Amino acid sequence: MKKNYSKKNFPVSKIRQILEPGPVVLVSSAWKEKKNIMTVGWHSVIEFTPSLVGCVIAEDSISFEMIRKSRECVINVPTADMIDQVIGIGNCDGDEIDKFKNFHLTADNATKVGAPLIRECFANLECRIFDTRLVKKYNFFILEVVKAHVATAPKYPRTLHYRGEGTFITSGSVMHKANKFTKLKNDPNF
Amino acid sequence: MKKNYSKKNFPVSKIRQILEPGPVVLVSSAWKEKKNIMTVGWHSVIEFTPSLVGCVIAEDSISFEMIRKSRECVINVPTADMIDQVIGIGNCDGDEIDKFKNFHLTADNATKVGAPLIRECFANLECRIFDTRLVKKYNFFILEVVKAHVATAPKYPRTLHYRGEGTFITSGSVMHKANKFTKLKNDPNF
Repeated sequence: MKKNYSKKNFPVSKIRQILEPGPVVLVSSAWKEKKNIMTVGWHSVIEFTPSLVGCVIAEDSISFEMIRKSRECVINVPTADMIDQVIGIGNCDGDEIDKFKNFHLTADNATKVGAPLIRECFANLECRIFDTRLVKKYNFFILEVVKAHVATAPKYPRTLHYRGEGTFITSGSVMHKANKFTKLKNDPNF
Repeated sequence: MKKNYSKKNFPVSKIRQILEPGPVVLVSSAWKEKKNIMTVGWHSVIEFTPSLVGCVIAEDSISFEMIRKSRECVINVPTADMIDQVIGIGNCDGDEIDKFKNFHLTADNATKVGAPLIRECFANLECRIFDTRLVKKYNFFILEVVKAHVATAPKYPRTLHYRGEGTFITSGSVMHKANKFTKLKNDPNF
């Protein structure tokens, strides 16, 4: 069954709610007539406003060149039921196959960038390159999230978190502790 | 009851197993006679060898100055049972109280750095500053893990993953998928 989330526009300054827990993500890109997807595990939120995310993109990938040239990409967050697609996308090269077709994923048009959204992912973060200072030495791109689409439900999707050596952990139970945050409760970014 | 993990020396090139899933961490530091702890959620593995981790350290913290001056720190990974300590450490300022004493945490000597290990955390990563190019603009430190101590059990500790607004998710079930990694199975870093 194809997933078809109802998604809402989501404030870009709050995308830490999506990425800070550390899920594996699928980064989609486009250049000329070609589009591609890669699996990425090394990323960090950097700033709320502008909404910045740092991300290591492997240099020996076609995605690296497509993102560098287009200066855009989309960070898509898959759920645990997509684990075979997540692994499969990391196993093959985009210059040999069409990963959207091969892994039965739907490329939707983004609003502000040329790279496609992956419809089956519960969140899609449209990004533009913001700072390339660390690309040459570390393949580390600083991206600005310029538009975010997040599924209206579930509120706490079951995400995948990679541990290396073929092992993933999934997100587990939720703990609400806002009443304990004495110092930060008036901070809009807490 | 005080936790007293049995820990082993852990290869620094494999610390992605600890940090890539995205846990909240406690960063400890020392400068002159003072030591401190801060709660940090924004970090990413950057490279296997040297073992590099990028980490945002809030500029308005005493820890920021202590790490900048000493050029060292320890990334300690707490488990979900330490949630009240994790939140409490983020709620208060180290220039007003001794966080080790106040939160009943034990400062053990590190091997290679002056900053203390937090005994009650299941992993302790001794770090030296490797690259400060992004500190001024983003408070983003690139740290080299020079020594790692990881509890021998449990293999999959229940870690905390912050989502903002006082909500945490914990790590959940484990999925072993090494047999699906066709491309990467001969890669020492997979």
